[in-house]
Amino acid sequence: MAALLLVAHGSRREASNDEVRVLTESLRQSADGQFEFIDCAFLELADPLIPEGVNRCVAARATQVVVLPYFLSAGRHVSKDIPEIIDVARRQHPGVNIHIAPYLGLSADIIPALIKMANK
Amino acid sequence: MAALLLVAHGSRREASNDEVRVLTESLRQSADGQFEFIDCAFLELADPLIPEGVNRCVAARATQVVVLPYFLSAGRHVSKDIPEIIDVARRQHPGVNIHIAPYLGLSADIIPALIKMANK
Repeated sequence: MAALLLVAHGSRREASNDEVRVLTESLRQSADGQFEFIDCAFLELADPLIPEGVNRCVAARATQVVVLPYFLSAGRHVSKDIPEIIDVARRQHPGVNIHIAPYLGLSADIIPALIKMANK
Repeated sequence: MAALLLVAHGSRREASNDEVRVLTESLRQSADGQFEFIDCAFLELADPLIPEGVNRCVAARATQVVVLPYFLSAGRHVSKDIPEIIDVARRQHPGVNIHIAPYLGLSADIIPALIKMANK
């Protein structure tokens, strides 16, 4: 069973964290059954943190977890912090295949999305 | 003449700023002549800062500047810092119409972009 874990930075401003939670609900409605479990987690400052997010996927019987970094650039968080946290999670869940997808900023779809927003 | 100014946070890590500059070049190639001048600027930590970015648009003879926040959530930067900086720029360039577009995180196109990335 495949799970998707959207990973955002997390903010002291709870409204920003709630934006991620609303987005996660939209993902659930749009993912077309491709992932049987979809949740979000945060690098810091908000709950659940990434290890707990992975735990939730595993508790939902996921055998494959795709970690999707909701970040625009490949700073230290994307290149170092998230991979290190996921390495620990892999050791804690040896029977689960945990894969880190490319971060959002690498998506070619960002360009047309920006052009559309520029017209609003 | 309409100009587009992509506004990112700016990073101490120059590679992250360069990602924004590369994206800006992609926007130039994709905007189909809708904006005659396209550039980027940063809220902090990188050059040009937003006021200088607006100055460049005006120097390129823009009469309309669309400021496009390259941000995923509506934190203080999007809700307060950028509007305050743009208010000052408006007073400095009274003949120029400066409009702040919605930030990227509000784009409905984020959802399919994320689902695509989850499969990579």
